[in-house]
Amino acid sequence: MSVKVAVLTSGGDAPGMNAAIRAVIRSGLAYDFQMFAIFEGFRGIIENKIVSADRTFVSEIIMRGGTILKTARFPEFYQEETLKKAAENLKFYGITHLIVIGGDGSYRGAYALSKHGIKVIGIPATIDNDVMGTEQTIGFDTALNTITEAVDKLRDTSSSHHRCSIIEVMGNRYGDLALYSGTACGVDLIISPEHRPSEEEIIETLKNINLNRARHALVIVSEKQFEDLNDLKDRIIKETGFDAKIEVLGRLQRGGSPSASDRVLAGRLGVYAVDLIANGIDNVCVGLINGRLRHMPIQATTKSTNPNLEELINVIDKLK
Amino acid sequence: MSVKVAVLTSGGDAPGMNAAIRAVIRSGLAYDFQMFAIFEGFRGIIENKIVSADRTFVSEIIMRGGTILKTARFPEFYQEETLKKAAENLKFYGITHLIVIGGDGSYRGAYALSKHGIKVIGIPATIDNDVMGTEQTIGFDTALNTITEAVDKLRDTSSSHHRCSIIEVMGNRYGDLALYSGTACGVDLIISPEHRPSEEEIIETLKNINLNRARHALVIVSEKQFEDLNDLKDRIIKETGFDAKIEVLGRLQRGGSPSASDRVLAGRLGVYAVDLIANGIDNVCVGLINGRLRHMPIQATTKSTNPNLEELINVIDKLK
Amino acid sequence: MSVKVAVLTSGGDAPGMNAAIRAVIRSGLAYDFQMFAIFEGFRGIIENKIVSADRTFVSEIIMRGGTILKTARFPEFYQEETLKKAAENLKFYGITHLIVIGGDGSYRGAYALSKHGIKVIGIPATIDNDVMGTEQTIGFDTALNTITEAVDKLRDTSSSHHRCSIIEVMGNRYGDLALYSGTACGVDLIISPEHRPSEEEIIETLKNINLNRARHALVIVSEKQFEDLNDLKDRIIKETGFDAKIEVLGRLQRGGSPSASDRVLAGRLGVYAVDLIANGIDNVCVGLINGRLRHMPIQATTKSTNPNLEELINVIDKLK
Amino acid sequence: MSVKVAVLTSGGDAPGMNAAIRAVIRSGLAYDFQMFAIFEGFRGIIENKIVSADRTFVSEIIMRGGTILKTARFPEFYQEETLKKAAENLKFYGITHLIVIGGDGSYRGAYALSKHGIKVIGIPATIDNDVMGTEQTIGFDTALNTITEAVDKLRDTSSSHHRCSIIEVMGNRYGDLALYSGTACGVDLIISPEHRPSEEEIIETLKNINLNRARHALVIVSEKQFEDLNDLKDRIIKETGFDAKIEVLGRLQRGGSPSASDRVLAGRLGVYAVDLIANGIDNVCVGLINGRLRHMPIQATTKSTNPNLEELINVIDKLK
Repeated sequence: MSVKVAVLTSGGDAPGMNAAIRAVIRSGLAYDFQMFAIFEGFRGIIENKIVSADRTFVSEIIMRGGTILKTARFPEFYQEETLKKAAENLKFYGITHLIVIGGDGSYRGAYALSKHGIKVIGIPATIDNDVMGTEQTIGFDTALNTITEAVDKLRDTSSSHHRCSIIEVMGNRYGDLALYSGTACGVDLIISPEHRPSEEEIIETLKNINLNRARHALVIVSEKQFEDLNDLKDRIIKETGFDAKIEVLGRLQRGGSPSASDRVLAGRLGVYAVDLIANGIDNVCVGLINGRLRHMPIQATTKSTNPNLEELINVIDKLK
Repeated sequence: MSVKVAVLTSGGDAPGMNAAIRAVIRSGLAYDFQMFAIFEGFRGIIENKIVSADRTFVSEIIMRGGTILKTARFPEFYQEETLKKAAENLKFYGITHLIVIGGDGSYRGAYALSKHGIKVIGIPATIDNDVMGTEQTIGFDTALNTITEAVDKLRDTSSSHHRCSIIEVMGNRYGDLALYSGTACGVDLIISPEHRPSEEEIIETLKNINLNRARHALVIVSEKQFEDLNDLKDRIIKETGFDAKIEVLGRLQRGGSPSASDRVLAGRLGVYAVDLIANGIDNVCVGLINGRLRHMPIQATTKSTNPNLEELINVIDKLK
Repeated sequence: MSVKVAVLTSGGDAPGMNAAIRAVIRSGLAYDFQMFAIFEGFRGIIENKIVSADRTFVSEIIMRGGTILKTARFPEFYQEETLKKAAENLKFYGITHLIVIGGDGSYRGAYALSKHGIKVIGIPATIDNDVMGTEQTIGFDTALNTITEAVDKLRDTSSSHHRCSIIEVMGNRYGDLALYSGTACGVDLIISPEHRPSEEEIIETLKNINLNRARHALVIVSEKQFEDLNDLKDRIIKETGFDAKIEVLGRLQRGGSPSASDRVLAGRLGVYAVDLIANGIDNVCVGLINGRLRHMPIQATTKSTNPNLEELINVIDKLK
Repeated sequence: MSVKVAVLTSGGDAPGMNAAIRAVIRSGLAYDFQMFAIFEGFRGIIENKIVSADRTFVSEIIMRGGTILKTARFPEFYQEETLKKAAENLKFYGITHLIVIGGDGSYRGAYALSKHGIKVIGIPATIDNDVMGTEQTIGFDTALNTITEAVDKLRDTSSSHHRCSIIEVMGNRYGDLALYSGTACGVDLIISPEHRPSEEEIIETLKNINLNRARHALVIVSEKQFEDLNDLKDRIIKETGFDAKIEVLGRLQRGGSPSASDRVLAGRLGVYAVDLIANGIDNVCVGLINGRLRHMPIQATTKSTNPNLEELINVIDKLK
């Protein structure tokens, strides 16, 4: 009797989730596993939104943004009663393994479920790059490209108007999106939890840029860094000689067809997760460490510090 | 002695302004006119930011967003004293003709200057498509594509989260950007000055969409239609069954490499403006009427109603 | 009893065909018509690939390239026997009206069928812009943007290598794609059926460009203009001082998500076609004339000369 | 007296070369080095195309494709006489260090020059990912995205026509571009030097795909794998049930604005190269090994085998 494996997506969606779903299901079928897909995250387990998935179920999705399985918030999941019910539902179908594609929160859900006899594997997918056990999450590269293209457009118009554009990007509690996109765009200032100039330094820097006859200034800010960004904007207008505008890039950072790199990463991690199951390994999350596929226990709960971050901040400081 | 013609850009920048500058300068040179470029709009005339421009001045700019000549706000321009000074400065260089690339406000500046003996021609460029004397402005097509790509990205993530995305687009006092982009994106609701469902109708429509099991809803709103969009968002969350988020696309709508269509339009209007000068016609603005190049007196001050608008609203109503 | 209307796509595919299918079906349903979709063009009528189509049949397709209905070559269609069989099959379903989305060849098929009692309407869709009765076909604008983006990329690399890139674009027997994309890209030379410099002039022009210290040269050529483009390439390398390479853009010109403008055009033409049926008008093709929706008898068989072409060639000559 | 460092680009151009030039010059200035830029590769040294470079020399280039320094073929460089002259020219300016951005050939030139007393550092930049001492070259990621977008467009039209598209990509002697882009696009077959199914297997695979009712087939082929791709195309048409077309993507793979990832990589490698000079290390090439910045002697002459390749081929086999 063949192994029965289900896959779901959970948490905020990220480009490349569909490529990961495809990789899990196709490589599972390559092992003659019986594959299932669950809609709407953990809630779908409770609500029995579980379907059998064959090759064609994942045809023509590798290039699509979002997740065909949808996701949902479901905080009630952690109640013992609910977890028990979820495990029962899965067992009713004969499903012994669950692959969860998402972020830290999704891993916690998976771990809680593993206590009830379901074998779980986590695949990291979120644009924020804030998941433990991996240097890079599925979706991060696409979001960087989306931000970079948006900033390149804002550059045109900032430059025409002698303007300082203050661009707010996502990142949850980490600055990866701000630091990498700021480096990619060659902006004048990056403000993130890990790289946090004082307001005085910000104003001073912009003043100097203006004195050096720059046509415009670009500032990238991680979300949640200021009580009210408008206060900073007003100071910039008053003190630096630039006009200033705030641009909140918003949720379009989460969308779009995944980049080549994210699709390849999704393929690698999806196949690796299924290879682990075939080798009898479970209750782990998979990821890239030093550019190689690795796995670690899913209950570990801290984001490994990005070992490239210190080096990146050196780059930022040298190029500013 | 050859005719001396200057060109400037004014008002908000728009993709395709550079292609228009290039067309004006190259076709002027084809007539053996002596061509000048003025930086920073009307203020540049007063501040003598005037340079001679040859073929290479406009090399490799046709594909760039923004305007290499920059623009600036300069409300003081309308004072008699300033206008007189501006005309004198131009005459000092021997410049008899000024081509102004911009919107309605730019046309008013040009007309005021024409009273002081400078022959002027207006070329319509703004993403808002709100300039008299033309069915289409330079920059409108690119902005539509930019909005459409952004909405396609938001569609991915809205659909993953059973969400209603309320997307605010520009347009100044007109709904062209909302109506055309909403049609292009096949959104569920368009709210613009010309197409303004009541709040009750909005809620009712979204309720029905949700009952019909749509995975998400997309609403496009022209800027300045609501006191506070958050009130609408809150009602949607409370009454329709959708989650809801507001996305303000912001100034990235103004940037980016111009679309093929905008570059061709800029080329056609730029060449036509110079052809008019060669034929002794001035104090006009140029545009597309019924798809053909036309000119009309620049002092006319009302936007011609878009003759396609009624038909477009029929399309919107049939396809919703 | 409600009117029964079918829609099919035929000939080469074009971006925006799906948006047109959606517009036809949704606006048909708005009139309470019963709508059908036929797969694989005229062959699908014979092979009974006919399905009933509701609102959701066309959900989430407005942004997709290609055609969900597929197309097929089917030269046998013109045999009396086959046409008779096709008309019978449609009548079996009660289908009285057929909307055909495609080019000239598709119109001929529709006209032939109309002789057998089926009421037909043609909607022009092809990237080549070579269909009678319209100034612009669905797909043309997207193809222009695709070519323009490709040429902008080739510009980077041509410029790095002091190279003349000879870029072959589609267009069938007409030069619209070459002339408009060449204008949009500001290339040095355009070679099309309507604008055909001699080989001597080509070489002379490139020589002069090189003497004027240009970093690179860009030439756009319509397909089928030279026995063997390699001969031209070899002469350029030998005589002009530039290195030279041929780039055949190929069928990627036919693909991609449709531009905003093509989606709006598809919506307008699709709704208009159905409006005509509702008003008892048939055996016509629809199109844009002077920027307005118009229809004419479908049996007319010559492409209306593009009235903008002479003006465009003036633009090209002034800006070269 | 400050250290004098020059930078040049050589070989085929790659997106991100400008970002690397910017990083080298800005971080050199951060060390108070005196920075020089050399135009047209090694030939520029002989022809004295050497200029002093300050901060603004590299303003607004981070997002541009190609190389502002141009490149040139210059096989004569390896003659002793020429190398001696080159070293003398550099010494005339006081230049002691040369940073060469390019591929293997560029490294050989740099190494030859190092024998004449110039200290050299190599930075790997080519779309082919075929440079020793690094897992990833600058330009590879952008080229992958360009190929992926092109294939996504071809997918639309292939699918509309029941066609097998045979897509030829670059890669020089290595299959990295084919293997990664093929994985990213989820194509049906990848043919590269490292992954080379026989013609029988190719035909068999496509036949099966057709029997399984696929709407289309996509095949990616590395350049130079077949005497004449048309022979394969003809067999596919005759034996598999698919129509077939060849698409040669050509040099547009080399162009375009660099991806976020390539810009960051260029920044990291550029800063690292200058950090090495500041630390007295030279005659090395820099790269990423296991995701970390590393350097090795520039005279080493073999491409390190991509350690991920075997794993990637496992992914390809599981997902096909």
